[in-house]
Amino acid sequence: MKNFDINEDPHRRYNPLINEWVLVSPHRAKRPWQGQNETILTQTFPKHDANCYLCPGNERANGESNPKYENTFVFDNDFAALKQDDIMYEDDIKQTFFKAKPERGISKVVCFSPRHDLTIPEMSLEGIENIIRTWQKEYNELGAIKYINYVQIFENKGNIMGCSNPHPHGQIWAQSSLPTQIEKTQHCLKSYYDKNKTTLLQDYLRDELKKGDRIVIENDHFVALVPFWAIWPYETMIISKRHVVKITDFTAAEVTAYAIILRQLTIKYDNLFKTSFPYSSGIHQAPTDGGEHPEWHFHMHFYPPLLRSSTIKKFMVGYEMLAEAQRDITAEKSAEVLREQSDVHYKLGKK
Amino acid sequence: MKNFDINEDPHRRYNPLINEWVLVSPHRAKRPWQGQNETILTQTFPKHDANCYLCPGNERANGESNPKYENTFVFDNDFAALKQDDIMYEDDIKQTFFKAKPERGISKVVCFSPRHDLTIPEMSLEGIENIIRTWQKEYNELGAIKYINYVQIFENKGNIMGCSNPHPHGQIWAQSSLPTQIEKTQHCLKSYYDKNKTTLLQDYLRDELKKGDRIVIENDHFVALVPFWAIWPYETMIISKRHVVKITDFTAAEVTAYAIILRQLTIKYDNLFKTSFPYSSGIHQAPTDGGEHPEWHFHMHFYPPLLRSSTIKKFMVGYEMLAEAQRDITAEKSAEVLREQSDVHYKLGKK
Ligand SMILES: O=P(O)(O)O[C@H]1O[C@H](CO)[C@@H](O)[C@H](O)[C@H]1O
Ligand SMILES: O=P(O)(O)O[C@H]1O[C@H](CO)[C@@H](O)[C@H](O)[C@H]1O
Repeated sequence: MKNFDINEDPHRRYNPLINEWVLVSPHRAKRPWQGQNETILTQTFPKHDANCYLCPGNERANGESNPKYENTFVFDNDFAALKQDDIMYEDDIKQTFFKAKPERGISKVVCFSPRHDLTIPEMSLEGIENIIRTWQKEYNELGAIKYINYVQIFENKGNIMGCSNPHPHGQIWAQSSLPTQIEKTQHCLKSYYDKNKTTLLQDYLRDELKKGDRIVIENDHFVALVPFWAIWPYETMIISKRHVVKITDFTAAEVTAYAIILRQLTIKYDNLFKTSFPYSSGIHQAPTDGGEHPEWHFHMHFYPPLLRSSTIKKFMVGYEMLAEAQRDITAEKSAEVLREQSDVHYKLGKK
Repeated sequence: MKNFDINEDPHRRYNPLINEWVLVSPHRAKRPWQGQNETILTQTFPKHDANCYLCPGNERANGESNPKYENTFVFDNDFAALKQDDIMYEDDIKQTFFKAKPERGISKVVCFSPRHDLTIPEMSLEGIENIIRTWQKEYNELGAIKYINYVQIFENKGNIMGCSNPHPHGQIWAQSSLPTQIEKTQHCLKSYYDKNKTTLLQDYLRDELKKGDRIVIENDHFVALVPFWAIWPYETMIISKRHVVKITDFTAAEVTAYAIILRQLTIKYDNLFKTSFPYSSGIHQAPTDGGEHPEWHFHMHFYPPLLRSSTIKKFMVGYEMLAEAQRDITAEKSAEVLREQSDVHYKLGKK
């Protein structure tokens, strides 16, 4: 019988944030690919596009015109998944199989920049700080609404992530319930905090910094790493070094450090396959239900789909949908590859 | 305040099989789509393709040649995610953050037919019965191996589901642990059974048949329906009417009825957008860990990604990855649309 080699042998890893496992098959990275290749839009975009409904001054689907904004711009999603209506209903607690409850909320769109042709890795530090301050303001204002108990800030980047407009933007969905994934994480964080009186992510970060092999970037206030239990090939997480439960608690120095790491991480992503790297990213932080939530610890997830090149993604299909997430490359290898990427954006390097 | 209208108002529905919720936004189906369109392969395939490594008589990646098979053909996946090696390791129970365990298993490929150009909806009933009998045989044999505690039978169909070869085939991954999704379902089924002494799906099916509005197809032994808590736009589930915990327990009449409903359902799928309808499907049934598992009840999930046409899929991205699954069309509406589809395959209709 041979000894377990985590770099070679199929194994499962445990994710303590959601109490689930992932199947890792390191040897499978050698598999050839004959399947679907993704289409990557490589055209260069104008600074302002007259047909873009997110550009300053242009008209949107509902007939309104965007202001001539100079930094960020936030508006209510014209095709919101959530509505603000206060709906009356009776909770039929006898239902086991047909349990449904109205959900109240607000969906917003956040334009990151007036420039149609930029993405976060190409923006100035000041521009990225503006995005973070906009997120702070929205979290604060939406969270203050009585019926809003959770605020999900996220970005879908790239056509392969279902993003239909290249103009740099993210979204915020704020709602009355804790969404499924948040409830799971809340549960895990709380059990840990109640038992240890420290946050799970504080202790995890300490152990990761000691090991070092999954760290991608570190600065005075933040760390970007490939989590031990990552699912997506180049999945990462940005964690604040200080125990901060929500984005509004960051000091000015922390906002700057957050902008720096966001920029560096997304530059490395773009450099990896010399493409505008697609991903879904999002912030996980304390619910806005009025509680203190000392168990929470600010972090941001990046879930990028690409596996081997700008056109070959990981498919989370059959086995993954029915049984368990599966990955072909170890977290340690991914971290190493990302760490090695230049901090200068490949487009600038060419000049 | 207006009264809750489940056909119009945003709401959440509860999935008792995994104890998770889904956000439903019926009004959002009207949203226009400017995003990525999928590429659909519309070429017609030859009955035998000399370059296909799944066709009878052809050579595979490892140099072996396929037999000249006439029904189904099963072989070990040349790029298996699991390996059979018995790996030695020490369970470091003190680990909270770096928990990993070797996983032992077998990955197989199941060719559904020697014909390169057919898919399940285009196969004869006899051909589909052969597939089911092959699944029975594999479940039985793999399940009998001492270290195999769970057998996942599944199919990825279509290039958009990461399937790299149109030759009709599915896969089987058999392994020593209960995968994440199975563990969740096992837990829910067991709690229900312990409390009620009936299976959750038996009672659910009774209530669905009473309601009728989510039923797509019903025959003497099986029902195909859109579950109340469906996530994917045209997600369905085939449930056996009889309380059967595993595929090997079906009578000959049940095997035939299962083949009939599989064929009818996939014909309706193909007819919906006049395309070879992509999906991942898979069977959930009793683990092979030696237990009786009276809480289990045979069912098969279909997770198809298409939303509006053969080229427009639902993207499970940002909000869905970070917070909660979300859908734009109600399960009742989807069931109605599927029910209305002809039982004659659109390609035959043209003749
Ligand atoms: O084994 P295949 O068909 O090469 O690969 C496909 O199915 C597997 C099981 O669902 C997935 O892990 C892969 O991402 C997918 O591309
Ligand atoms: O709101 P958008 O950008 O039109 O839509 C995109 O993001 C949403 C939130 O993740 C998803 O529900 C949609 O499936 C996706 O296409």
